[in-house]
Amino acid sequence: MVKKGDDIADVILDVCKRNRFELQDGDIIVIAQKILSKAEGRIVRIRDVVPSTRSKELGRITKKDPRFVELILRETRKILKVTSDIFLVEDKRGLVCINAGIDKSNIEGSENFALLPENPDLSARTCRSKMERATGVKLGVVICDTYSRPFRRGQVNFAIGVAGLGVFRDYRGKKDLFGNVLKVKNVGVVDEIAAAAELLMGQGRESTPVIILRGLNASVQPDVDSGMGDLLISDKEDLFKGIL
Amino acid sequence: MVKKGDDIADVILDVCKRNRFELQDGDIIVIAQKILSKAEGRIVRIRDVVPSTRSKELGRITKKDPRFVELILRETRKILKVTSDIFLVEDKRGLVCINAGIDKSNIEGSENFALLPENPDLSARTCRSKMERATGVKLGVVICDTYSRPFRRGQVNFAIGVAGLGVFRDYRGKKDLFGNVLKVKNVGVVDEIAAAAELLMGQGRESTPVIILRGLNASVQPDVDSGMGDLLISDKEDLFKGIL
Repeated sequence: MVKKGDDIADVILDVCKRNRFELQDGDIIVIAQKILSKAEGRIVRIRDVVPSTRSKELGRITKKDPRFVELILRETRKILKVTSDIFLVEDKRGLVCINAGIDKSNIEGSENFALLPENPDLSARTCRSKMERATGVKLGVVICDTYSRPFRRGQVNFAIGVAGLGVFRDYRGKKDLFGNVLKVKNVGVVDEIAAAAELLMGQGRESTPVIILRGLNASVQPDVDSGMGDLLISDKEDLFKGIL
Repeated sequence: MVKKGDDIADVILDVCKRNRFELQDGDIIVIAQKILSKAEGRIVRIRDVVPSTRSKELGRITKKDPRFVELILRETRKILKVTSDIFLVEDKRGLVCINAGIDKSNIEGSENFALLPENPDLSARTCRSKMERATGVKLGVVICDTYSRPFRRGQVNFAIGVAGLGVFRDYRGKKDLFGNVLKVKNVGVVDEIAAAAELLMGQGRESTPVIILRGLNASVQPDVDSGMGDLLISDKEDLFKGIL
């Protein structure tokens, strides 16, 4: 169990050591947001939260505890939709997610809620540096969380922070099997990595918050400075603007 | 190279045999849409297409060949957005995708375009039955294609057809590590499977249109009747309605 103040890089390195698992060049470490939130002290006791007038008002609309709404608003850049069914926001990190990604699953104490890590890119970079220094190998780190999406039921895992690998595999300008030049394909591999990891990570009692992907050297660009800013798109530029 | 009339199940079984790779209970076979389109004769020569007045009109707006627009419209249930940047539709299968999923990457002949398989769920079921009969093991089949999505740049792989595995891993009503009952989590694993496979499949000259995932027995519900109807959501029910 991860506690406030734990260093997640140390935790991972320790588990690797105990399992005699040696990290290799190009390994991608996928880390569930929840353990970083715990380690970074992002767990909030709801009874300590004082709701604003606005939070009380939105609490009535959404049928949510106004103190929970207050937590959401503090993490929010822009409210996208508020009804009795959904509180959807663009959070201060630019992530579009329900309840600003705040929840209580796998958090101890019925009054406690986990906020997302303050700066998931920074968390990823910090983890990466420490693990690279300790092991001498080049690593990628992806921090992930599970969100609903338009058009389809259910949730899937998305990247919310990244360090040390390209977020895209860009085919634009390259040729296909028959020499046609690809014009559009630019695959968001960092989200596919998050999705792949979720299949083993799970959401319940699996206790597997870290997954290591090996052998993707041909699919990802290693050892680059990257961040979620490369991936997230402004409302204005979003091709899907106007359709929902 | 897959040709019209090829049986994709036979192709896969043959490659497995030549590589002395034995399929096992619970293996999930992920198949790129493009080879099914080829095998099922869904390649269209653009010069054989006669555009309607409506296609000519939309061709002017989108700056696309009206014959290409004609192909899109034939596959479309509902037009969602038409500008000079994007032709976004809900196709007749219920998939929300640009250009109704029609493209020419990895298709031979500069005049040829690939339509999606007529009924990807049926393609998946047919493939599954044949491979299960030949091998005596229980398999899952996922057919996938790569699409843009809201909120984030780039494309990721999505499921467009499925047979023999549950599209969700449903945690609702189950307990987390601390006994809290999970209320919402219902993970769209079939899309995560498609995303995971894309990391190895690629979009260019990789020539790896089939990926086998093994060891997901704890993550997916095996041997169930399923289909994309379980996953796709109507415009009315979509939680994201009204926000883009």
